Amino acid sequence: MKALIKDKPVRGATLTDRPIPKIGDNDLLVKVRAAAVCGTDIHIYQWNEYASSRIKLPLLFGHEYAADVVEVGKNAGHFKKGDRVAAETHIPCGHCFQCTTGLQHICRDMQIIGVHTDGAFAEYSVLPAVCAWKLDPGISYEIGSTMEPFGIGVHAVSKTKPAGKKVVVYGCGPIGIYAQMVAKFSGAECVIGVDVAKERLSLAKQMGTDVVFNPKEVSVADEVNKITKGFGADIVIELTGNKNVVNDASKCLRRGGDMVLVGLYSGSVEWDLVNNVIYKEANVFGVTGRIMWDSWWTAQGILLSGKVDVTPVITHTFKLDDYDQAIQTAESASGGKVVFKL
Amino acid sequence: MKALIKDKPVRGATLTDRPIPKIGDNDLLVKVRAAAVCGTDIHIYQWNEYASSRIKLPLLFGHEYAADVVEVGKNAGHFKKGDRVAAETHIPCGHCFQCTTGLQHICRDMQIIGVHTDGAFAEYSVLPAVCAWKLDPGISYEIGSTMEPFGIGVHAVSKTKPAGKKVVVYGCGPIGIYAQMVAKFSGAECVIGVDVAKERLSLAKQMGTDVVFNPKEVSVADEVNKITKGFGADIVIELTGNKNVVNDASKCLRRGGDMVLVGLYSGSVEWDLVNNVIYKEANVFGVTGRIMWDSWWTAQGILLSGKVDVTPVITHTFKLDDYDQAIQTAESASGGKVVFKL
Amino acid sequence: MKALIKDKPVRGATLTDRPIPKIGDNDLLVKVRAAAVCGTDIHIYQWNEYASSRIKLPLLFGHEYAADVVEVGKNAGHFKKGDRVAAETHIPCGHCFQCTTGLQHICRDMQIIGVHTDGAFAEYSVLPAVCAWKLDPGISYEIGSTMEPFGIGVHAVSKTKPAGKKVVVYGCGPIGIYAQMVAKFSGAECVIGVDVAKERLSLAKQMGTDVVFNPKEVSVADEVNKITKGFGADIVIELTGNKNVVNDASKCLRRGGDMVLVGLYSGSVEWDLVNNVIYKEANVFGVTGRIMWDSWWTAQGILLSGKVDVTPVITHTFKLDDYDQAIQTAESASGGKVVFKL
Amino acid sequence: MKALIKDKPVRGATLTDRPIPKIGDNDLLVKVRAAAVCGTDIHIYQWNEYASSRIKLPLLFGHEYAADVVEVGKNAGHFKKGDRVAAETHIPCGHCFQCTTGLQHICRDMQIIGVHTDGAFAEYSVLPAVCAWKLDPGISYEIGSTMEPFGIGVHAVSKTKPAGKKVVVYGCGPIGIYAQMVAKFSGAECVIGVDVAKERLSLAKQMGTDVVFNPKEVSVADEVNKITKGFGADIVIELTGNKNVVNDASKCLRRGGDMVLVGLYSGSVEWDLVNNVIYKEANVFGVTGRIMWDSWWTAQGILLSGKVDVTPVITHTFKLDDYDQAIQTAESASGGKVVFKL
Repeated sequence: MKALIKDKPVRGATLTDRPIPKIGDNDLLVKVRAAAVCGTDIHIYQWNEYASSRIKLPLLFGHEYAADVVEVGKNAGHFKKGDRVAAETHIPCGHCFQCTTGLQHICRDMQIIGVHTDGAFAEYSVLPAVCAWKLDPGISYEIGSTMEPFGIGVHAVSKTKPAGKKVVVYGCGPIGIYAQMVAKFSGAECVIGVDVAKERLSLAKQMGTDVVFNPKEVSVADEVNKITKGFGADIVIELTGNKNVVNDASKCLRRGGDMVLVGLYSGSVEWDLVNNVIYKEANVFGVTGRIMWDSWWTAQGILLSGKVDVTPVITHTFKLDDYDQAIQTAESASGGKVVFKL
Repeated sequence: MKALIKDKPVRGATLTDRPIPKIGDNDLLVKVRAAAVCGTDIHIYQWNEYASSRIKLPLLFGHEYAADVVEVGKNAGHFKKGDRVAAETHIPCGHCFQCTTGLQHICRDMQIIGVHTDGAFAEYSVLPAVCAWKLDPGISYEIGSTMEPFGIGVHAVSKTKPAGKKVVVYGCGPIGIYAQMVAKFSGAECVIGVDVAKERLSLAKQMGTDVVFNPKEVSVADEVNKITKGFGADIVIELTGNKNVVNDASKCLRRGGDMVLVGLYSGSVEWDLVNNVIYKEANVFGVTGRIMWDSWWTAQGILLSGKVDVTPVITHTFKLDDYDQAIQTAESASGGKVVFKL
Repeated sequence: MKALIKDKPVRGATLTDRPIPKIGDNDLLVKVRAAAVCGTDIHIYQWNEYASSRIKLPLLFGHEYAADVVEVGKNAGHFKKGDRVAAETHIPCGHCFQCTTGLQHICRDMQIIGVHTDGAFAEYSVLPAVCAWKLDPGISYEIGSTMEPFGIGVHAVSKTKPAGKKVVVYGCGPIGIYAQMVAKFSGAECVIGVDVAKERLSLAKQMGTDVVFNPKEVSVADEVNKITKGFGADIVIELTGNKNVVNDASKCLRRGGDMVLVGLYSGSVEWDLVNNVIYKEANVFGVTGRIMWDSWWTAQGILLSGKVDVTPVITHTFKLDDYDQAIQTAESASGGKVVFKL
Repeated sequence: MKALIKDKPVRGATLTDRPIPKIGDNDLLVKVRAAAVCGTDIHIYQWNEYASSRIKLPLLFGHEYAADVVEVGKNAGHFKKGDRVAAETHIPCGHCFQCTTGLQHICRDMQIIGVHTDGAFAEYSVLPAVCAWKLDPGISYEIGSTMEPFGIGVHAVSKTKPAGKKVVVYGCGPIGIYAQMVAKFSGAECVIGVDVAKERLSLAKQMGTDVVFNPKEVSVADEVNKITKGFGADIVIELTGNKNVVNDASKCLRRGGDMVLVGLYSGSVEWDLVNNVIYKEANVFGVTGRIMWDSWWTAQGILLSGKVDVTPVITHTFKLDDYDQAIQTAESASGGKVVFKL
């Protein structure tokens, strides 16, 4: 089968031929139909510090995908050949404190598909049954491949109650836009998107965000203050991963508001906790991944409601052969989601 | 001033002249601009058991209203002449356990405007400042007069998290429809309305409810079962006040679902708690009135979002002189909200 | 092995010899060390309507137990021979909506050990690994065998926040007393136990309950009213299973209070919902079983805290040979928990 | 009357004579019976940057106190002469978003007694009725004067559910010890106190904390790791106000745990959010003051339960004349609470 392999500790990757993998008793063999490019995939391709400190070569990467089941492991009998599935990236151990209290997605001994195990930029992949989500017939493979990042948006927003509230989302990359869409869909009175990339601000507006701001051009805190008539935003969601943003973002928050941190920073963050968290009695929620499987059920409900069309967030599709161009497109941070169709 | 008075212990009411009332230090004198007819007003007009056991004659009734402030009591200086306001019906004592823990709306010593005190079917009314809500300029007097019942819908839905969920609302009277609108606005995947009156089912559909059922024609539990693929509904809200409905409504609920009880029953309800609450681990929330003032803030946010237009729920407007016709229209239960414009 | 079998559709059971059972890939074979008698076991022994409508004969019954692992199924490698375990009674399917959202204990396709499958009143039993809880070295087999009913008390109380609050528990059987102990341990200002059996009221007092009432002797609602200075109780937990108690219990509740329903009623319950739930804005929580595995973790934490000694709740221990006497003791409802030691 | 006045912008204060103050319509005049020394009072006495940037001279300071009502303002008729009261420090405006949604304690326009208005280190004080709490007959003036800081401990712990959980509290000053006591009282399996002052660690142990650590002597994260068998603590409460502690404290937390920030830092805090909040999905709650009046009701319930004796946390009492010695004792950070008895 064709497979995109990270095989050398330098920028790039190699499309090569590999045997179709064997599965274990708890696995599914799946034929990949659509696979989306994640920030992690870009790190791996770039071979930056994040990647080189985590990844053992060679690695078949890619982890956001939808597929058809073609073989079912002995202990995975609740799936069958022909099932359409999407993949949850986090492989939980199933037995730790977190896994036994509904927090499998932050399992103590978690492995990640396409990081710790071979992934899905290939014609076939091994999907642990514990990570397989049956795709509703109403959801396409392309959309299915983005349910993983969409689920992060769902999870982030689900920490809050946006109905009738004002929500600021820092970051208009795909997950930022998903979070904005989910907040709007969940009844936010007003959703404000923040980014430095014009194309992303445009895409956010196109997808239904009420107002967008570029912090290079305006003071976001001042603008939020105006829009909220001096109250501050009820909810702030941080998705840039830029560590210089956190303190500013928390300035937008009203007293008693909710802040959700999702973006990943390199290094420590300087934060005026007294003024922006403690005196405000802010509730700050760290979010990583998706709740298994609450976030997926909610994501499915939203997608099937007929009120949200996430299709335009996929701004580019490629064949696997065009992987260089695909990943460079994603890297440019100027568009939305990049998806391989197989 | 003109005032609609319940003065005799028989069906009906009398439109009469009264002096404009004097206010106390904690009150506002307001000029009523719009006043909506509530079920309670119908009871008072009919002089049924509910009314006769609660009401002391004579009474100026009516309690859902919007108005202009024309005089400000000494201790109510945070309001000023000319402020547009809507009225919260529940007058809290301010000092009991409930009032000191954010539950003023279920104050132990609560009084109700237009029930225990003179109300608003009149040109002027005395509004305790503690019950006055400043109307946003973007909200009309008519809509303002319905924020009280709309707020019940907001409060009922706020007990749950509808985003991506399936919601059944029993009852398509005005509050039932408001609850359906709020649930839909808050991201419900699917909202199902239930009523026995065709006109009300039509109005519900018109206002955005996805599916409506008439229990005279179909088994609602069976239909919900089909729509939810055998799961059951995530959320059920009971707003009929028909005591024979509760058990059936709870049959629609999935295991682990939320049920909200708002409708008022005459007498005890027979309920198979084991199968419909305990084995299901249902969460059942009693709801009365609106949270002061969370529900109002949320209601305002929803109304100002520009995504919800509650205007068509007001199906009839009348002058106060036409009170007989107005109350009989409301009594017929065939339309939506009936509002007096003054 | 010795095994207590329900083999005939009449009162009683038969202690007999059986081969040690074979296990499947997902199971553990365990040597039973202690097994407690549950109300369900009494029903089975009595062969009342509850039992005859659910049970297929013959059945090895008993489901509250602690044991040693003697053989490990192929897919249960996170356990090993010699592990000490307690059993969770509910066998979840693992794949339904409930099982995939942290609600395995109310699985749609749930089976129950000792009801739908062979149980534990025997020398050996087959325990599905998904239902096995590793017993902490600080917890004895006897106490381990009661973690299942203790966990119900934990789960019931965990629906509420008792610190500094007044709590009424209807029912002073073992689970009622456990709930009282957990409420007290969790910081209740005052715990009130209610029962008609004097011995049980005594045991409740002995275990730390502040006040006990016998509804045959006093009006519980009046007494609660006095103790709470007219406020009503913050929390009411119903564990009698007597359908005539529900409405009275809800009268004790303050406005805005929490009510937890655990006891199982035969037939429908008559409940004045308007006055006792809706106008009060009561939150009513159905509870069945224990959350897997939150309730177990919390139960373990409580037992290991050194502040709670549940030993005296086990008022009688028996050998399996004395099963008639054991079950009749449990049936008499005059003591606490009855445990077989093997 | 005698009054302790901060009158000069240097270290110290002056005990002087002043006329008994006049009250407004919304106030109570109270005779102070006990007043406790808070960290803020020490700042004012020291005239450090915190004080000089906030305080206008001259100021009668002191704000944690219990008193007798001697005169009642016209609009404060729910109090009467002779009522025993304790003071809530935060004076809410009553009308902002926060004040109208149960968050008066973080009122947007909040004033603080003894900071923005004259306080209570005096024989008489003016207490706004909105800040007066009726003291239960079972609570002494001394304990009453500490209900304000005790309430912070209550509020901090109330953000979490400690029953059966492991709790680490950084800081063993009075509020730290109160938080530890409340956590223990609320059912924590194990409470761990952390401080650098030996006397405070001793006092914490004496008051019931299970384990104490001095970060000068051991790695707290390592010790917590051992005690929790590698899980990490379920709950971490930060009360030192030392900005170098936050990141270390968050290292103690398990994945999915709750962290409460109460201590006030000078300047920004450096925090490795990715590893200690986001990947962990920590819930971080800022806490300031007490919820009006939930925290007070809960505090009262705890104090009246008879299971918690906070008396020994008051390690020193003084006459107002000995104010220098009193404040220096508090300043030394070697004991517990310092209280003036009047």
